[in-house]
Amino acid sequence: MTLDALFRPRSVAVMGASAREHSIGHSVVQNLQTFGFRGPIYPVHPSAAEIRGLPAYPSLGAIPGPVDLVHIAIPAAQVPQAMAECGAKGVRAVIINSAGFKETGAEGERLQQAFLAEARRHGIRVLGPNCQGIINTDPQLRAYCNFTNTHPRPGTVSLAALSGGVGGFILQGLADIGVGLRMYASNGNACDVSLAEILRYWGDDPGTEVIVLYTEGFADPQAFLEAAAEVAPRKPVLAMKAGRTERGAKAAASHTGALAGVDIATELIFEQTGMLAFTDEGEMIRAAMAMATQPVPRGPRVGILTNTGGPAVIATDVLVGAGLEVPALSARSVERLRAALLPQAAVDNPVDVISTAGPEHFRAALAVLLDDADIDAIYLCLVTPSFTDTQAIAREVVAASRQRRKPIVCNFMTDLAQERFRLTQGILRDGGVPCYAHPGEAARALAALDRWRRLRERPRDQPRHFDDVDRSAARAIVAAAQRDGRRQLAADEVARLFECWRIPLAAWRIAADAEAAAAAAQQIGFPVVLKIDIAAASHKSDVGGVQLNLADADAVRAAALDMQHRLAHLGELRFLVQQQLRGGQELIVGATRAPGLGHLLMFGLGGIHVEVLKDVVFRLAPVGPVQARAMLGSIRAAALLGGVRGRPAVDQAALVELIERVSALLADLPMIDELDLNPVLAFAEGVCAVDGRISLCAPT
Amino acid sequence: MTLDALFRPRSVAVMGASAREHSIGHSVVQNLQTFGFRGPIYPVHPSAAEIRGLPAYPSLGAIPGPVDLVHIAIPAAQVPQAMAECGAKGVRAVIINSAGFKETGAEGERLQQAFLAEARRHGIRVLGPNCQGIINTDPQLRAYCNFTNTHPRPGTVSLAALSGGVGGFILQGLADIGVGLRMYASNGNACDVSLAEILRYWGDDPGTEVIVLYTEGFADPQAFLEAAAEVAPRKPVLAMKAGRTERGAKAAASHTGALAGVDIATELIFEQTGMLAFTDEGEMIRAAMAMATQPVPRGPRVGILTNTGGPAVIATDVLVGAGLEVPALSARSVERLRAALLPQAAVDNPVDVISTAGPEHFRAALAVLLDDADIDAIYLCLVTPSFTDTQAIAREVVAASRQRRKPIVCNFMTDLAQERFRLTQGILRDGGVPCYAHPGEAARALAALDRWRRLRERPRDQPRHFDDVDRSAARAIVAAAQRDGRRQLAADEVARLFECWRIPLAAWRIAADAEAAAAAAQQIGFPVVLKIDIAAASHKSDVGGVQLNLADADAVRAAALDMQHRLAHLGELRFLVQQQLRGGQELIVGATRAPGLGHLLMFGLGGIHVEVLKDVVFRLAPVGPVQARAMLGSIRAAALLGGVRGRPAVDQAALVELIERVSALLADLPMIDELDLNPVLAFAEGVCAVDGRISLCAPT
Repeated sequence: MTLDALFRPRSVAVMGASAREHSIGHSVVQNLQTFGFRGPIYPVHPSAAEIRGLPAYPSLGAIPGPVDLVHIAIPAAQVPQAMAECGAKGVRAVIINSAGFKETGAEGERLQQAFLAEARRHGIRVLGPNCQGIINTDPQLRAYCNFTNTHPRPGTVSLAALSGGVGGFILQGLADIGVGLRMYASNGNACDVSLAEILRYWGDDPGTEVIVLYTEGFADPQAFLEAAAEVAPRKPVLAMKAGRTERGAKAAASHTGALAGVDIATELIFEQTGMLAFTDEGEMIRAAMAMATQPVPRGPRVGILTNTGGPAVIATDVLVGAGLEVPALSARSVERLRAALLPQAAVDNPVDVISTAGPEHFRAALAVLLDDADIDAIYLCLVTPSFTDTQAIAREVVAASRQRRKPIVCNFMTDLAQERFRLTQGILRDGGVPCYAHPGEAARALAALDRWRRLRERPRDQPRHFDDVDRSAARAIVAAAQRDGRRQLAADEVARLFECWRIPLAAWRIAADAEAAAAAAQQIGFPVVLKIDIAAASHKSDVGGVQLNLADADAVRAAALDMQHRLAHLGELRFLVQQQLRGGQELIVGATRAPGLGHLLMFGLGGIHVEVLKDVVFRLAPVGPVQARAMLGSIRAAALLGGVRGRPAVDQAALVELIERVSALLADLPMIDELDLNPVLAFAEGVCAVDGRISLCAPT
Repeated sequence: MTLDALFRPRSVAVMGASAREHSIGHSVVQNLQTFGFRGPIYPVHPSAAEIRGLPAYPSLGAIPGPVDLVHIAIPAAQVPQAMAECGAKGVRAVIINSAGFKETGAEGERLQQAFLAEARRHGIRVLGPNCQGIINTDPQLRAYCNFTNTHPRPGTVSLAALSGGVGGFILQGLADIGVGLRMYASNGNACDVSLAEILRYWGDDPGTEVIVLYTEGFADPQAFLEAAAEVAPRKPVLAMKAGRTERGAKAAASHTGALAGVDIATELIFEQTGMLAFTDEGEMIRAAMAMATQPVPRGPRVGILTNTGGPAVIATDVLVGAGLEVPALSARSVERLRAALLPQAAVDNPVDVISTAGPEHFRAALAVLLDDADIDAIYLCLVTPSFTDTQAIAREVVAASRQRRKPIVCNFMTDLAQERFRLTQGILRDGGVPCYAHPGEAARALAALDRWRRLRERPRDQPRHFDDVDRSAARAIVAAAQRDGRRQLAADEVARLFECWRIPLAAWRIAADAEAAAAAAQQIGFPVVLKIDIAAASHKSDVGGVQLNLADADAVRAAALDMQHRLAHLGELRFLVQQQLRGGQELIVGATRAPGLGHLLMFGLGGIHVEVLKDVVFRLAPVGPVQARAMLGSIRAAALLGGVRGRPAVDQAALVELIERVSALLADLPMIDELDLNPVLAFAEGVCAVDGRISLCAPT
């Protein structure tokens, strides 16, 4: 693997090693020593003979053995030269702790380009600059190449964060709740090694079972998407993106654009690749604990076991709210519980063994819940009455958890100021039972486990290839507009392009004047709609450029003359005459370009409802039938599509196909900036777009 | 105050006092001793001469001095007799720790009734049974009348919980984060002293500054509502109700009923009385810490001060998402910051003093944010680099907080395994600065402070009295139906009742047959709608009992004959002929009875949208103009009322008046079970209901 030199160095040199306590160059050497790095550590210092008891070298070249990884903690201006020395020494990876590069302006960016060119010349991989570094807790390696001071215990969770500040406190948060770490990386300016590469590397690392990512954005979202799509189906990837409220405002006054912010794209990457997205860092840390210790449930049915009543009610609220179930137990289970528990115990679900229950009661109740085929996971709610042997109870819980038949999470409510209860928690945690202080926290962690189950179980989607479309004619329409330097396609171009792609559009004719409009209407059949065809007015109805319900040729002629008169200031008008469809559910299908990610597809309630109800959902293109159908089901008003109050259900198969065709069209015509079919009318049989717009990207 | 004997006892006796460790009768005596109760403690035991070093008494009567409060921790069967002894002794309050009463079935309920009758006879107030008890940390009193083992430090937060299990862990949670307690109560079966009374008592307690409530429901919701309405405007009341997902299903196939669950009523009590509702217990505990230590912000504008970048981004997300602002600082502030901070510091908002900043930089930055008139609150994000004097920094933060000019919350990210950082946190907490481990937690606590500001600032509402209505005629319509034993009012009764209350309804006539219907339509004017008038079919359109767009008398006659033919199985049909209104926005105004709370009012999108979009909001009646207007603004599609895409705004004043009239009508006719105006058509001028239904409560 190309990142082995970074994450599995056999030897580490520190340029800028220092005897001054608390300096980065000191902390890095100290951390390597105290964490017990298995390879040689080479401090590099212009004059010192030794640093922290290790022989120091005046230069990299003076180091006797080979060097895999170099920490650079020297002033920014000297980094390009240092990189050249690394190249001469045959170094394979560099961590640049120093700041003062791209984040500071033009001069810093120049320096960054300079050392990067040097690194590329020598095939050196670079983490940072302006970063903390990495940690690898592998007992064979013990590489703490980092200047922070949280020393994690070895485990199976690997954590990467762009921001060292956030990485540091997530690292601390995992340590605080007793989650062991496999590897850590904080890559700062991320000039070379990217989050996508780290994700792939950990995807292939057998010691990493859970991956936690924190980011504030992606330089190359497509690369990240591809890495995520590869890794997320194999290992749980918990991800959080901050900067969610800083929405990129789009200039175009377009429906699609106004509704799809920058944020949506990241959420969609997380969602579509099967990552577990979080917006609360504490919840993500606590979920990681459950993921790292417990098996995935086989279904959503939770058995609650408690020795006090109230908290189980809170847990039930959170579990049910997250889509899990708290079903009744089988008659057999109830019978077994009644036989084994104290007379005052509640033997339904939640099972309340009551506060006086001892280890034997917990053992029995856990066995029943593990045996019950209708229970997929166990939620344990444990208070520590002073009169019970809580440590013996904890050992029973650990024994049940060790069977790994069903996941167990524990809401452990106690006073940790008392040593006996700290010991009890220690037994649970050392035994791999995740403990949470509040009922809601434990319930949300279990809900995350269940989310991971559902993500793993969801069907694979396969975008369709359409054989019945005329791609070359469609491309020619776009090429012609591009040749003319036009970004907005004319109404007839839009209509012809949709015809090429067999996207149904209400019958239409273009007419140059009022007389031609009347004649076109005769051909189409009445009633018709008359619209001006002018690119500038993106919302024709706002300027009075749309007339509905024209019942005969005279009406069409009069309406066209009226528009010519009223809208003379818009220049010479052409008209679009279109069949007027009646009834049907107004929907919208649209797309907007997501820079670096292709297109976002949108589906939702159309017409006036787009802006008022904002009942729309997005997916990253391409989508296949599974995702297209999921879009239909994801709008709030999904019931409307299934038929309500005597209205028939709409033709959902036709809608799905329409979305798939739009998706395929976008894949073939990536220069499309925005596309709208609004409204699309959905009938009991068939769907038909009534209006459409297409605009192209600015020429580059 | 009537609860003084319970919360401020001058002497306490314990019936069931025991020398056996961990028993309730032992723990209560022990807690009174170790917590340092200022008054005499009297163990009562049939035979022991002393318990835990205190002289024991064979009976209450044998105690030499007066007894304010008695703990009863003896078998349930003996409690009525014990209560009689309490009466004889002149005891004023009793805490019944014993279980085995109403929660266990009929025999237990009989025992509960028996001791309660005894208590009432003697004017004794009872907490419990099946409860923990109370704690009062008042240094003059130190009353720990409770068998739990969390010993809180004195403070200003009072906590009441129905469930002892939940009360216990919230108590623990408050202690864990260093929040001082004023009083605690867990009232178990709540047979006498209610949450409402405790709330009022703490509302009047000068030592209580913040009230935290946990409940699973209310025996007398109206009493709680009244107490909350009195206390919540004066002190922050943080409240959580569990059992949210257990929705009471309503039998009637009514719009209003199906949408308003049991849960909504509790949420509305919290919302309308100005309590701060929570669904996450951890968030409530952390908010209590901010409330207990910091002043209320004067506005929503937050200045963020950090010594690391990333976490401030997370904080910004949460703050902005909760409706707060992170505005740019004034030029003067930026200038002051630039002069005072390190050159690499970021002097916009968030202000990043960078990790090397020392106490003097924090002092300067805090002063700037306290002085800036455009900043209402300070969010502090603090990591603890090993090379800075974090304790000196903490002292600067405390000094700024002590000025109490603006609230300060602190996201303190550190390794508490290191003593120096524990000491740093101790300085902050002892200095009254609330510390939170994660950025989101601190941001949500600050958001809760701001929610409290907004609740305090919202205008008072005053329900209107209408002089222009005919109350007696309306009452007569209802009385007639009640006399006939009818629960569903006939269409003409509904219409006349609305006329009495000047609730606009489209012009209507009742017709006994097809011929009369045609004649009625002539009088109303065309087009008209023809509807069957039959109580059983609550949704007339579902059975084909509605015909729209009847343009002339022949059409009306034909439609009526057709319905008579098709719907013969419904019995003899009467018809409602009604003016057909065109255009207008379809809305719904409705009401449903909330047992023990009067009525829930509903407003939202009407017609088919009620069920599909569920875009409706609820308020408890009565509402005045402030709440009615708030209802209009609270639906998701509120923009629709303001005019969209060339449609005019609807007449919101008329809508508000309509809601107020329905509210007043319900106050006058409390026997109404459900009332629907659906759809109400709202026009640019005026509103008009098109259909209405009223049903009455079952006779009692």
